[in-house]
Amino acid sequence: MAFKRFQDFLSNLVSRQRRFFDGSEEETVDGLLVKLMGTVGEVSGIVTARQLLDQYSVMSPDEKLNFFKYLEKDFNADRDMIRQAFKRYDEDPSSANLNQLSKMSEPRRQELLRRLNSTPDAAHDLVEMRTDLLRFLAADEKLKSVDEDFIRLFTSWFGRGFLVLQTIDWSTSAAILERIIKYEAVHEIKDWDDLRSRIDPPNRRCFAFFHPALRDEPLIFVEVALSVQVPSSIDSILGDESSNKEVDLEYTTATFYGISNCQPGLKNISFGNFLIKQVVQELQMEYPSIKTFVTLSPIPGFHKWLGSVKVEELAGLDLLKTELNKVRKSEDELESNRELIKKAACNYLIQLKKGKYPLDPVARFHLGNGASIYQLNVGADMSDKGLYQSWGTMVNYLYDLKDIEENHEAYAIEGEVKFNDKLRPLIVKD
Amino acid sequence: MAFKRFQDFLSNLVSRQRRFFDGSEEETVDGLLVKLMGTVGEVSGIVTARQLLDQYSVMSPDEKLNFFKYLEKDFNADRDMIRQAFKRYDEDPSSANLNQLSKMSEPRRQELLRRLNSTPDAAHDLVEMRTDLLRFLAADEKLKSVDEDFIRLFTSWFGRGFLVLQTIDWSTSAAILERIIKYEAVHEIKDWDDLRSRIDPPNRRCFAFFHPALRDEPLIFVEVALSVQVPSSIDSILGDESSNKEVDLEYTTATFYGISNCQPGLKNISFGNFLIKQVVQELQMEYPSIKTFVTLSPIPGFHKWLGSVKVEELAGLDLLKTELNKVRKSEDELESNRELIKKAACNYLIQLKKGKYPLDPVARFHLGNGASIYQLNVGADMSDKGLYQSWGTMVNYLYDLKDIEENHEAYAIEGEVKFNDKLRPLIVKD
Amino acid sequence: MAFKRFQDFLSNLVSRQRRFFDGSEEETVDGLLVKLMGTVGEVSGIVTARQLLDQYSVMSPDEKLNFFKYLEKDFNADRDMIRQAFKRYDEDPSSANLNQLSKMSEPRRQELLRRLNSTPDAAHDLVEMRTDLLRFLAADEKLKSVDEDFIRLFTSWFGRGFLVLQTIDWSTSAAILERIIKYEAVHEIKDWDDLRSRIDPPNRRCFAFFHPALRDEPLIFVEVALSVQVPSSIDSILGDESSNKEVDLEYTTATFYGISNCQPGLKNISFGNFLIKQVVQELQMEYPSIKTFVTLSPIPGFHKWLGSVKVEELAGLDLLKTELNKVRKSEDELESNRELIKKAACNYLIQLKKGKYPLDPVARFHLGNGASIYQLNVGADMSDKGLYQSWGTMVNYLYDLKDIEENHEAYAIEGEVKFNDKLRPLIVKD
Amino acid sequence: MAFKRFQDFLSNLVSRQRRFFDGSEEETVDGLLVKLMGTVGEVSGIVTARQLLDQYSVMSPDEKLNFFKYLEKDFNADRDMIRQAFKRYDEDPSSANLNQLSKMSEPRRQELLRRLNSTPDAAHDLVEMRTDLLRFLAADEKLKSVDEDFIRLFTSWFGRGFLVLQTIDWSTSAAILERIIKYEAVHEIKDWDDLRSRIDPPNRRCFAFFHPALRDEPLIFVEVALSVQVPSSIDSILGDESSNKEVDLEYTTATFYGISNCQPGLKNISFGNFLIKQVVQELQMEYPSIKTFVTLSPIPGFHKWLGSVKVEELAGLDLLKTELNKVRKSEDELESNRELIKKAACNYLIQLKKGKYPLDPVARFHLGNGASIYQLNVGADMSDKGLYQSWGTMVNYLYDLKDIEENHEAYAIEGEVKFNDKLRPLIVKD
Repeated sequence: MAFKRFQDFLSNLVSRQRRFFDGSEEETVDGLLVKLMGTVGEVSGIVTARQLLDQYSVMSPDEKLNFFKYLEKDFNADRDMIRQAFKRYDEDPSSANLNQLSKMSEPRRQELLRRLNSTPDAAHDLVEMRTDLLRFLAADEKLKSVDEDFIRLFTSWFGRGFLVLQTIDWSTSAAILERIIKYEAVHEIKDWDDLRSRIDPPNRRCFAFFHPALRDEPLIFVEVALSVQVPSSIDSILGDESSNKEVDLEYTTATFYGISNCQPGLKNISFGNFLIKQVVQELQMEYPSIKTFVTLSPIPGFHKWLGSVKVEELAGLDLLKTELNKVRKSEDELESNRELIKKAACNYLIQLKKGKYPLDPVARFHLGNGASIYQLNVGADMSDKGLYQSWGTMVNYLYDLKDIEENHEAYAIEGEVKFNDKLRPLIVKD
Repeated sequence: MAFKRFQDFLSNLVSRQRRFFDGSEEETVDGLLVKLMGTVGEVSGIVTARQLLDQYSVMSPDEKLNFFKYLEKDFNADRDMIRQAFKRYDEDPSSANLNQLSKMSEPRRQELLRRLNSTPDAAHDLVEMRTDLLRFLAADEKLKSVDEDFIRLFTSWFGRGFLVLQTIDWSTSAAILERIIKYEAVHEIKDWDDLRSRIDPPNRRCFAFFHPALRDEPLIFVEVALSVQVPSSIDSILGDESSNKEVDLEYTTATFYGISNCQPGLKNISFGNFLIKQVVQELQMEYPSIKTFVTLSPIPGFHKWLGSVKVEELAGLDLLKTELNKVRKSEDELESNRELIKKAACNYLIQLKKGKYPLDPVARFHLGNGASIYQLNVGADMSDKGLYQSWGTMVNYLYDLKDIEENHEAYAIEGEVKFNDKLRPLIVKD
Repeated sequence: MAFKRFQDFLSNLVSRQRRFFDGSEEETVDGLLVKLMGTVGEVSGIVTARQLLDQYSVMSPDEKLNFFKYLEKDFNADRDMIRQAFKRYDEDPSSANLNQLSKMSEPRRQELLRRLNSTPDAAHDLVEMRTDLLRFLAADEKLKSVDEDFIRLFTSWFGRGFLVLQTIDWSTSAAILERIIKYEAVHEIKDWDDLRSRIDPPNRRCFAFFHPALRDEPLIFVEVALSVQVPSSIDSILGDESSNKEVDLEYTTATFYGISNCQPGLKNISFGNFLIKQVVQELQMEYPSIKTFVTLSPIPGFHKWLGSVKVEELAGLDLLKTELNKVRKSEDELESNRELIKKAACNYLIQLKKGKYPLDPVARFHLGNGASIYQLNVGADMSDKGLYQSWGTMVNYLYDLKDIEENHEAYAIEGEVKFNDKLRPLIVKD
Repeated sequence: MAFKRFQDFLSNLVSRQRRFFDGSEEETVDGLLVKLMGTVGEVSGIVTARQLLDQYSVMSPDEKLNFFKYLEKDFNADRDMIRQAFKRYDEDPSSANLNQLSKMSEPRRQELLRRLNSTPDAAHDLVEMRTDLLRFLAADEKLKSVDEDFIRLFTSWFGRGFLVLQTIDWSTSAAILERIIKYEAVHEIKDWDDLRSRIDPPNRRCFAFFHPALRDEPLIFVEVALSVQVPSSIDSILGDESSNKEVDLEYTTATFYGISNCQPGLKNISFGNFLIKQVVQELQMEYPSIKTFVTLSPIPGFHKWLGSVKVEELAGLDLLKTELNKVRKSEDELESNRELIKKAACNYLIQLKKGKYPLDPVARFHLGNGASIYQLNVGADMSDKGLYQSWGTMVNYLYDLKDIEENHEAYAIEGEVKFNDKLRPLIVKD
């Protein structure tokens, strides 16, 4: 029973056909765009799309910016057709007239993106293209319209239904592992040996989401440590020899200590919120003895909040800020101010909001997933970055499968933050 | 290295969650629709979608018709929002205003279909749903708008890029094989033994396209016979013992003698036009000695044309019709009128048009793929159906990879029909 | 990452080379045997082995018998060499001299079998060859020596370490499923629909052992029914609609109701004794709610024992025999003699021995595996065969993982039969 | 369709059972040996074997030597039983009596090795064990008997029929790739980047043989460079940037530039002789344009021969030796003596013998495989090792599939060395 990907067939077709077009490779991008939007031939459309993507990939930043500006300006819709369609709809808002209006008002950019995507491995190129586009958004707000078209089409192409959860371990292909090294964003992986210490020991696990449209490219991955108690510092996980301890025990706890998004070009195309939940389910099957699933997470916005001059609504919070700002970020001072730091961090996570949701971005991710705040660990990350961001403090978020959906809904609707009862005494009230 | 489909994770989630909703399963379809469009919870949306699809599947035909009517009437868009968006666009046709108008004029049906599709295995149910819908279109033309929304979303979901070509043989799973038996539309497969005679012998091959959204469901498949000459009758392929002959020879010819679409609910979502081309490529790799790739195809519209009273533009064609209509569809008369039948069939295929394309649907398929007419075979299918449709005549279309793209373009643009020079003397001119 | 079996490479080699030998295919078996034992060329040896196996496969029974007789007579060892080796060993029983004697006294048949096995797919042919040989053993006792050589080599080739347990279900390949239909020995599978009712419903499972040397050929398989209580009749498992009941419940019980050996040519090459244990482990992982693992087994030797005239040591057993022999095997009489039948069957299974082990062959298999007798079910199999063999009685053997090893050792050493305490009152003592 | 390896089931069983034996793990090796040879229980035998292998693995070299001495002395056979069996055989040399003698004279070591091999992953341990044993052979010649038992059993266990050829590339698992780095014996692989330059570029290929008994452990692998001409130096293959040249051309030549055996413990258990042949076949399928298959091989015995004082039979050879010995192994002198070096190397390879086969070990390997000497390249390997071994000279052996079998037979029977006619003028005669 042999399987053959249609993509591979098309790739062959494209590379064979391109030889015939050798002279025409000099065509301008504009020429190729016109050609692509006008093609009839099935193969020639695919070949033209490939030529366009290849030409794009070697453009200078300025050329790329111009390319996007061109898309923004010249790939909208036919104004007269829209007017006619609207007129008919306005007179008779039937579903047929609505559909017609809807079709007429679709920007031609969408058809362009669809045609580009018809060529093999286009998904890689288009995700790269959007990575570029996101950088230009600040410079030219109009390009937001182009990004909306990318978002609309990516949302449809990268359907969650095709996601595959894959275990990453020492038997994983080198092609994937080198990307794990490259994409790890929380606690840098230094080399192949460091990687091995995170994925090979029996008390270390790693999982990634993959999508068939992006072969060999992880979308997001999570690193997990298994242990017999909730770890209160990152050194107990990543320190030398730590992975050699607690091997082959009856594990009770799984800690998610690193979650890294791999594809900046897929920003806002949501994949991550189910990753931890599926990993929890897999680990429960494999290790029935594991009952506690927590993260060990940084508090990246803590320092920034403390530095802000904004006056808080609760006087108690202002007081905490003032007091903590006197504490220097040194090991000594930290040691003698543990309770203060803990209290401030706890209130920061639970009480500080941006709109109705927490101010801290990592808190927003986990609480939005349905987790709750479980424990605060002062001195958990004594690296320079850790000290700077949060006086070395880290937090465990708890994933309790039976509460997740309820927590998520309460959070989504009311912005409610669930936390461990033990933390209640630390909360500042007026 | 373990792979876990996200779909399977969701399936578990849904079946676990549904137990909590047991009481609420009595909810009406209307209630579920409202609930689905308003859900916030990630899991509850998925559960509601599953409930809706399950309730739909047990509806009576009348209830289904009402369901579609409801979608047509009540899932359009907000008229006021459209008016405002149009006004802004009309004043300033910027890309931002266009995008806004485009978003506002999207029928809510599309969001509904997207939400339904979020639940595991929704693709099967939605394809079934559209199969029903297609039957109602004749009765209520308004439903065409609903179908347009299905088409738009299916086109995006069933991206060609995910297609997989799979060899079908005796080592294929029974779950897939029973569908091959069921879906064969050209030459019925009687039972498992008949199936085996078509896929197991070394000079018989079968290939199907699959898509990950429809697991175990072939989309379209093609049956192939390998031989040392172009077969001129279906009996030489399907007759008793035919598969035992010509085994293990240096094959020169591959004949596609049956192509069956399996999913009526995917009508107009194009997959088939690349199937034969990919199969040709695969067979060339495996058997370098094969140089000729042809079909052995029915001429399904021949009889109907002969029965039509319409006067042809060319007097010679009318003459052929009149003459052939005198010939009874019996073996004897056929034998003594071979040349007449051949000439009439040849002219029917090459000269008779509907718009600029051939009248015969099978001719449209193969010629549109870039094939050419190679040979006409009188007496090639002496079954009742074969005699009735086309005086037992079949046609070989030729797939010559080096001409395919050019033929396809000439056909697509001009409706040009390519054919073997040997057939030129048969063509009627004025 | 592509995998290529070395076997497939050799197959290509052999079929290509054979064309050169076309004239020489007329060689006699004797000639081929001489050639095979004398070959130097790597490929020519493999080709000659294939020729020999092919010639063997088309021999008449008489020719086959002669072939084995020839192996028995002419493929022993060199008597003089043995004498010399023995002399040296007898003078100095060093390990070197022992090894030399061991080498000299190896029958040349073993080298012959090894050389035959060097050709691709030889395992299939050699297993078939031994199937023939086993039939001749009764006729010619000397052939037992040939069989000993087969056993010695099969034991080594079919190492347990390569066994693979495979789930058999509706997604299994048709090539394997047709063998399941063919090999089912306990409760005949009538057709593909009957097969489907045994492997497709969620409360039916099937597992088989495979070995890479015998591709697509199951060695042994077991059929399992999941339920919420221990089934007391085969009709509750195989009767119409039975598989539709008890679907999707919280199963508590797995019943092994059919175990079939597939390869007569592998007689005495033990695979089966671990099959049930591994299946128990797999099912426990998948369904933690299942706590009871039993068989529903026939009592094939019961009728034969009752018919035997041998006087038992225990007078009570003779009495039971006499009484039961008066009962006709009809539904009525059976109904009014349930207690008598149960008591007799129970004593037959527990007390009747052949040597130190039970008389009943199925009892020997399960008790030897470490199972215990759990329950006797009168009227459990009312088919003609069931009535005839055992007055329709079947027995549940219990597989309790925590007792299995201890039971097995007590059985292996002492022949001790473990049984449920509930059965103790039925045991006849003097 | 799920597959479960029986090995994994046993592994679970063993690790679970070992907990019960915790106290008894202190048992001596002698005690375990006695226990293993006497076990009845299926599981307890497997557990004891695992305990023994684990204890062995932590022994000191002296303890290991004693272990082997013990095997040599105390695991022979029963002298009286052999005498009786011989007596019966001597009186009546029937096949039954021969089989009995054969059985009696089998050293008990063989049964011991078989029982050790019953535990999961025993193959790894036993191959390691033999690696140790091979080192002790020089010290104690008697241990050769123990090694003969290892050879006999390994020959049977590592049947060629189970070999799998696997492509090694950048998508191969890190677990396998690190072994490739470790085992490369010809041209050292410095790090992961160096590895990548050998397996990832489109004009570089690597293939390895694997065996299911040694999971993830390559047995032997070969590195291949694709090019448009026969390479005459190793620098043109391994030098910087060399792999970037000649990419994506119509390759005509495949060069095997490194062949490494990975398992010293499998010495004399032949796998390698088919590797190149299968790779040739695979490459021919993939690249029909490749017509020339050569090696680029060192001449490791050249220097040693030149240093030997033995007088050659042919005076001409002695002359060559004397002349070449005057040439210093420096780049300069080499340059001005190319013809002399070439002539000497050519005669060394073709004329110098050990018994009837070539003196050079690499020549023996390739010529024994059926290759021929194609071309000599002076200055092909200017590394220290290359200069030292062979004045920087390397040789291309040619694999021409149509001659291989004939060459192999001529070589095996007569020791005949095939070589390119171009080399004939260089041959020294008397």
